[in-house]
Amino acid sequence: MRSIVHTITVQTASGEYPVSIGNALSGSVVKRFSAIFSQRKNVYVLTSPEIWSLWSARLLAALLPLEPVVLFLRSGEQFKRLGEVERLASELAGAGADRSSLLIAFGGGVIGDVGGFLAAIYMRGIDYVQMPTTLLAQVDSSVGGKTGVNLRAGKNLVGSFHHPRAVLADTHVLSTLSTRELRAGLHESIKAGLIRDAALFRFIEKNTPAIDRREPGVLEKIVRASVRMKSEVVHLDERESGLRMILNFGHTIGHAIEAAGGYGALLHGEAVAWGMVVALRISRNRNYLTAAVEERAVRVIVALDPPPLPSFSAKRLLTIASRDKKNRAGSRRFVLLQGIGQAVVVEDVSDAEVTEAIAAAIAMSRARQAR
Amino acid sequence: MRSIVHTITVQTASGEYPVSIGNALSGSVVKRFSAIFSQRKNVYVLTSPEIWSLWSARLLAALLPLEPVVLFLRSGEQFKRLGEVERLASELAGAGADRSSLLIAFGGGVIGDVGGFLAAIYMRGIDYVQMPTTLLAQVDSSVGGKTGVNLRAGKNLVGSFHHPRAVLADTHVLSTLSTRELRAGLHESIKAGLIRDAALFRFIEKNTPAIDRREPGVLEKIVRASVRMKSEVVHLDERESGLRMILNFGHTIGHAIEAAGGYGALLHGEAVAWGMVVALRISRNRNYLTAAVEERAVRVIVALDPPPLPSFSAKRLLTIASRDKKNRAGSRRFVLLQGIGQAVVVEDVSDAEVTEAIAAAIAMSRARQAR
Repeated sequence: MRSIVHTITVQTASGEYPVSIGNALSGSVVKRFSAIFSQRKNVYVLTSPEIWSLWSARLLAALLPLEPVVLFLRSGEQFKRLGEVERLASELAGAGADRSSLLIAFGGGVIGDVGGFLAAIYMRGIDYVQMPTTLLAQVDSSVGGKTGVNLRAGKNLVGSFHHPRAVLADTHVLSTLSTRELRAGLHESIKAGLIRDAALFRFIEKNTPAIDRREPGVLEKIVRASVRMKSEVVHLDERESGLRMILNFGHTIGHAIEAAGGYGALLHGEAVAWGMVVALRISRNRNYLTAAVEERAVRVIVALDPPPLPSFSAKRLLTIASRDKKNRAGSRRFVLLQGIGQAVVVEDVSDAEVTEAIAAAIAMSRARQAR
Repeated sequence: MRSIVHTITVQTASGEYPVSIGNALSGSVVKRFSAIFSQRKNVYVLTSPEIWSLWSARLLAALLPLEPVVLFLRSGEQFKRLGEVERLASELAGAGADRSSLLIAFGGGVIGDVGGFLAAIYMRGIDYVQMPTTLLAQVDSSVGGKTGVNLRAGKNLVGSFHHPRAVLADTHVLSTLSTRELRAGLHESIKAGLIRDAALFRFIEKNTPAIDRREPGVLEKIVRASVRMKSEVVHLDERESGLRMILNFGHTIGHAIEAAGGYGALLHGEAVAWGMVVALRISRNRNYLTAAVEERAVRVIVALDPPPLPSFSAKRLLTIASRDKKNRAGSRRFVLLQGIGQAVVVEDVSDAEVTEAIAAAIAMSRARQAR
């Protein structure tokens, strides 16, 4: 099957790289990025056992003459740690990886974050290519150059900015993704639409059933629009000093929900879903949004049926949120909406506003469960 | 006591930073770098218990209004590991360090390498200042932006390029350094002279007794010339793609000696001393150097009385050297001399040449012991 391939160029201070999006692209990764693969003595693949059991044949066929060495990281946020990075770096060294080697991160968000960080620090930096296999990774985490791992004290507290040489998002790989993971990733695309692309938001609003069916054209369009939005923002603010902050919409409370639940109860995208519900509520309470617009946005989010929001006390979430690394400088920055596609960063959100909005989100979640 | 302070500006692709060198400078670090310290909410010091027991009063007095939090790393190459970095990052997080915090690395080469790497990856990068307390760190490792830790598989196999905001080299702090450590550090200055600064080499040649007595003017001059040489090379080749390779003079075999001895038998500078003896021998065998020049250079090195070279087999050192990260790309690069102050990088040094030169160095070491 031939398919249309869209390539978006991400421009950064240190150069640019292509993000290619299309159906069943994995098999042509070497041909597509021939300049990156040519003259590589050593190619390494970091992946998860689950992804590898499903898609190794296709990727190995593409990489065949390169005889890649395959490294594994088990699935789950709990393996996104420095201890695992050390193990993987030792495996690279043992397998003879040098500064001219190439690492392919073939998996979801954790594989991309750990693989990118491994590439950032192994011999003070080697090239890598992202091949994201979840919707979350395709629409969000594989673009932007943020890499890193967790500490017990919090998510992504250590890491580097290290851009990949290329990203290849094969939407066909999403066919083996669970509906829950697909929908969790879709929340990041909803976020992309809400903060900066009203057309993307409307497209998702109208196409939820087609997304659940994994219709290739629909998935491609969503990945493309999400990547385009993010690449523009990253280009304008590579080191997150200003505009890039808007990508954090729904994440301040989302991260707190994840931390409070011990990174297990909800997937990242699901926690962000509830975080967006909270941010939308605050935006409405401030009359940044009309009730109708807030309700429309919330409707699209809850239509994806995120698991119930655990009954954390608002106070506990607030405490955790104020530890969030983006809020440490003193003031608590919050991303709110002034309309679909129009984000605004504010610094004066009070504890009372957040508490009220969290309580409202918890009440909404309970009401949905009771039905 | 007032002293003359020399400041050398290191220029890098990402900006520039000052290296200030002088006697008894530590007490004025905040005043000297007021632009870096002003408006800092949180300042952290990474140091070793030994350095802190000797010099804490002076540094704390300088930092007093900032109420720095002090983190400790035990002395020794074996603590230069990712596990320690994780512990220190967790301590930073627990103490409320945020992206606007400043870390001061106050200690020898290991403190500088680990502190720089911690600053490179904590929250994807925070500012840091180097305050090197050993001659080795002052003349070499605190300048250049290379940071990192060891793997079991080899030294500095993971790390980052992350430049400090400033370096302050207080030669008075060298007064508490053991003679062995002082001399080990001096080998890096001899290297600086041999590869690119004949006047520095002659100065060391003439002033070894004054160095042992820690004469401030002599130490300052050596640190200054060494830093100037290194900053020029780093400016011209920040990412070690060409010229910077010459800094590796004596290091290919030096690293192998360290690795073979388990990083305990010889200090880094002492291993480099023997590595330089080997490289000088190869240079002479190739008629790049006259016998007289080789002997003169060797005389200055062995006058510092490095501990005997353990009787590794030449084959073992060669095997380890070919695993060295700078030699993985296939060819074995070697830095040789064509005269005092004139380094040359060659790629065609044969195993036989290295074997002969290692055997000669071992024989010389044995002959010195037998005397």
